[in-house]
Amino acid sequence: MAEEINPHAGPLRKRIFQIVFLADTEAGRAFDLVLIVAILASVGVVMLDSVESVHEHYRGLFLAAEWFFTVLFTIEYAVRLAVVRRPLYYARSFYGIVDLLSILPTYISLIAPGAIVLLSVRILRVLRVFRVLKLANYLDEADQLSRALRGSRRKISVFIFVILTLVTVMGSMMYLIEGGENGFDSIPRSVYWAVVTLTTVGYGDISPATPLGQGLALVLMVMGYGIIAVPTGIVTAEMTRGHQAALATRRAETCPTCGLDDHAPDARFCRRCGTDLVRAAAPPEPPRVT
Amino acid sequence: MAEEINPHAGPLRKRIFQIVFLADTEAGRAFDLVLIVAILASVGVVMLDSVESVHEHYRGLFLAAEWFFTVLFTIEYAVRLAVVRRPLYYARSFYGIVDLLSILPTYISLIAPGAIVLLSVRILRVLRVFRVLKLANYLDEADQLSRALRGSRRKISVFIFVILTLVTVMGSMMYLIEGGENGFDSIPRSVYWAVVTLTTVGYGDISPATPLGQGLALVLMVMGYGIIAVPTGIVTAEMTRGHQAALATRRAETCPTCGLDDHAPDARFCRRCGTDLVRAAAPPEPPRVT
Amino acid sequence: MAEEINPHAGPLRKRIFQIVFLADTEAGRAFDLVLIVAILASVGVVMLDSVESVHEHYRGLFLAAEWFFTVLFTIEYAVRLAVVRRPLYYARSFYGIVDLLSILPTYISLIAPGAIVLLSVRILRVLRVFRVLKLANYLDEADQLSRALRGSRRKISVFIFVILTLVTVMGSMMYLIEGGENGFDSIPRSVYWAVVTLTTVGYGDISPATPLGQGLALVLMVMGYGIIAVPTGIVTAEMTRGHQAALATRRAETCPTCGLDDHAPDARFCRRCGTDLVRAAAPPEPPRVT
Amino acid sequence: MAEEINPHAGPLRKRIFQIVFLADTEAGRAFDLVLIVAILASVGVVMLDSVESVHEHYRGLFLAAEWFFTVLFTIEYAVRLAVVRRPLYYARSFYGIVDLLSILPTYISLIAPGAIVLLSVRILRVLRVFRVLKLANYLDEADQLSRALRGSRRKISVFIFVILTLVTVMGSMMYLIEGGENGFDSIPRSVYWAVVTLTTVGYGDISPATPLGQGLALVLMVMGYGIIAVPTGIVTAEMTRGHQAALATRRAETCPTCGLDDHAPDARFCRRCGTDLVRAAAPPEPPRVT
Repeated sequence: MAEEINPHAGPLRKRIFQIVFLADTEAGRAFDLVLIVAILASVGVVMLDSVESVHEHYRGLFLAAEWFFTVLFTIEYAVRLAVVRRPLYYARSFYGIVDLLSILPTYISLIAPGAIVLLSVRILRVLRVFRVLKLANYLDEADQLSRALRGSRRKISVFIFVILTLVTVMGSMMYLIEGGENGFDSIPRSVYWAVVTLTTVGYGDISPATPLGQGLALVLMVMGYGIIAVPTGIVTAEMTRGHQAALATRRAETCPTCGLDDHAPDARFCRRCGTDLVRAAAPPEPPRVT
Repeated sequence: MAEEINPHAGPLRKRIFQIVFLADTEAGRAFDLVLIVAILASVGVVMLDSVESVHEHYRGLFLAAEWFFTVLFTIEYAVRLAVVRRPLYYARSFYGIVDLLSILPTYISLIAPGAIVLLSVRILRVLRVFRVLKLANYLDEADQLSRALRGSRRKISVFIFVILTLVTVMGSMMYLIEGGENGFDSIPRSVYWAVVTLTTVGYGDISPATPLGQGLALVLMVMGYGIIAVPTGIVTAEMTRGHQAALATRRAETCPTCGLDDHAPDARFCRRCGTDLVRAAAPPEPPRVT
Repeated sequence: MAEEINPHAGPLRKRIFQIVFLADTEAGRAFDLVLIVAILASVGVVMLDSVESVHEHYRGLFLAAEWFFTVLFTIEYAVRLAVVRRPLYYARSFYGIVDLLSILPTYISLIAPGAIVLLSVRILRVLRVFRVLKLANYLDEADQLSRALRGSRRKISVFIFVILTLVTVMGSMMYLIEGGENGFDSIPRSVYWAVVTLTTVGYGDISPATPLGQGLALVLMVMGYGIIAVPTGIVTAEMTRGHQAALATRRAETCPTCGLDDHAPDARFCRRCGTDLVRAAAPPEPPRVT
Repeated sequence: MAEEINPHAGPLRKRIFQIVFLADTEAGRAFDLVLIVAILASVGVVMLDSVESVHEHYRGLFLAAEWFFTVLFTIEYAVRLAVVRRPLYYARSFYGIVDLLSILPTYISLIAPGAIVLLSVRILRVLRVFRVLKLANYLDEADQLSRALRGSRRKISVFIFVILTLVTVMGSMMYLIEGGENGFDSIPRSVYWAVVTLTTVGYGDISPATPLGQGLALVLMVMGYGIIAVPTGIVTAEMTRGHQAALATRRAETCPTCGLDDHAPDARFCRRCGTDLVRAAAPPEPPRVT
């Protein structure tokens, strides 16, 4: 969270900011957990409410719950705006928008009732689930994962890029081969089939009938079966690497001379300036808290 | 098994305990194997008995087999309770409960007959299959595997955690897009579809009909196809590492002369400076049984 | 692109060649990007045009767009032929043929109208999408990926080879077991099913009905589920290796002092003995553009 | 091939043996290739012949081809028996049985005609496809692959073992939950469904209808999606390792002093006896032929 507290804030607002935005205090963590629970509960309500049979029985209960959560989240939203330094900046941030979108619907429902539109907007509350991801911040693992993914970002995009070209061409060919029959009644639909097949999802709502079409389908399946090795290989290689970097922590993590901090596992000297890292690690480094 | 023997046990009970609970003797292993076979056989009976046609023909045979296994497992259960130090502790343990559940049904069937309820509980005997997993303890590999999984436990939970958030949001969006039609008649059901698609299972019992819906489905498929790389990467990295760690456990982990610390499993001398590693290791650890 | 410029070309043609065939100048890259956009747009038109409903509404618009792109690509094709050294060589190259195929249909449609045949050839324009892959050349990652794939080419072919043998035998057995019923009405079709199952695509358009058949299907599924580990393992190992190899290319691959040969990418000094690797490398190779 | 030549064989039989059983001569390789082609052709005939429509048209042609291949393979079989040292040993070997099974059917068809039985046995010829695997012997890669698989054999069996336990329990639970409805009409069938789901094949011929059942299905899918990481991790780790061993070949592959031959990539001294390997590698080792 890049949020900063309002510099002119009094001790109270300071405390509130610390609780609401940070997770470095007991109270802060407690707040986050309570919030998460509330979010999950509200999402649960929205989901159950969408089930016709359940909706019939507990209509009243759901309405009550909806208002309860709306008020709760409204207060939270107000508080956040109050204590943060740049309210507008926060309001325009991802979480800020999500927060707003998740409370607006209920109020709108007062002025403009109407089954479908109401429903549509109310579902926006599900977006709040994203907040749950904040929990991940407590875990060092999440950090490693996202680093590995970021590290292989470009490779993966190249991969997806090739996949897209492939399915476009394959799909078009199937459209030609099946002659617009057997569900391949347009190129986009054939491309949809190609993706369903290449990713080995295989709904089976469309499947080729001509021998030639089935032959091409086989090629596509085997490709998809083998190609999956590529993204896996990418991420794995990236992770093993990130992991090796982590290993390096058993010696001075950062070279005291030049500040380089990702030495190889068996590095004895800093590879940039040649400082002896093992000796440098005089005091055994404390377990890193993240 | 955290089970301990009754301290006041005589030599006979000691011997029985050793055979029934431990696998470090010939007799102990033999007992385990016999037990496993009995379990598999009893499970086989339950499974076959559930097939209508087979049930008709061999009703008598199955009834006999059922009583045979029930008596057998009852004796085993009694013996375990008799020789173990804290019978209650064992009775409340996972295996203790499974053992009880697997014999009770047949007795209940005497006093309270009744097709479905009887059947339901009898099937619990299948849980006994878990006992088979004890066999895995004999294999060092199983140990390595579980270590690798434990090691990546947190990473994997973060991963599943993200997946769940993703399918919730995607499912809700599909519910909106398809407008409760084409099988997407409630959010939970749409989320179910999202999981079926993301995991590339693709039953095809529900599949989007609107172009927009199919577009979103494509995104979800490609994501699922690519995301699978993550758990794979996690476990693989963990295994490669576990393997490297395993190498080190047999002799001096770090060469006292040159500090090299990733020696091959059967390395006797440091491959860089030729120091004798086995002697270097203060107490040579005993060769682990595999 | 192995294309060479016509040696007797004047400065203008030289410049054009540089822009059209190379990507080492600002103008060259700009040209490529514009071309890609045009291709994607033209492909988009072909795809949408294949959707019946859309075709009805925008027939006129699509016809215009089609002629626009045809003229555009015709000019491009002419230019390429004009500036390249061996026009025939280029005309016979993969891209040369694709380029021709992508403009011919429209002209043919003037002399020989006819729905399906016309459509068929017009779709070939989709092949132009392959040109998009040229963009990948700008990315070092694409290079690494293709190297990894090339490196594991033979291993993968062996793998596919085994897979094919497997599905042939399994498919034939299923044909026997199911006795030509339940969709297994010929060996080729049974083999098709075997591939659909082994690759975990699982359309479900054919699935065994006899117990024995289902048993064999289970074996095939578990095999497919496990076997996928092989291509993944191949590519991953190849990548980890390729990555390690890449590290070494920037400076002295082997430390002349201590002979350590797996230095980190930005290593300046040998991490074991502190020797300066960059100086050690006779001719420091230029930093590769990414 | 563990086959040995008959010691009392004359030069002609020696030559034949060399051609038929070994691939170390031009003639030997040529023979193998011709044989492979013949096998593929014969298999192709069997497959096409099973397609009703094709069978109608080319009945005569197929019959001729069948006799041609039968005679051809009979001669081959006879020759093999003639030149090999222990005919019985060969006759009982895997390939020996396959060879016999692939020629018998046609002869049987003379004495005992009859649609289905004839068909059944004739299809045995497909087994000959296994001979194709002999080609793999020419590739070093195949060797590496099988080594990697053998190396992880036990780990994989443990894995499959756990999978089987899991699907048994899950399947039984589904049978209880769905109450024998919606296709879950017996435990074996429910287990079949569990495997179809866990392996992400997802035919969709059976899928849960009750909310609880769908919930369990979700758990199973996510498990299957994540668990696949395990076999992949196993094989990958095994391969990376095998690969590192391969790297070692840039120095003396075998220690001239103690004969140890799998040194680590950066090993300078033999880890068993401390001999300097780099110096030992005076003459650059010849490229290994496999």
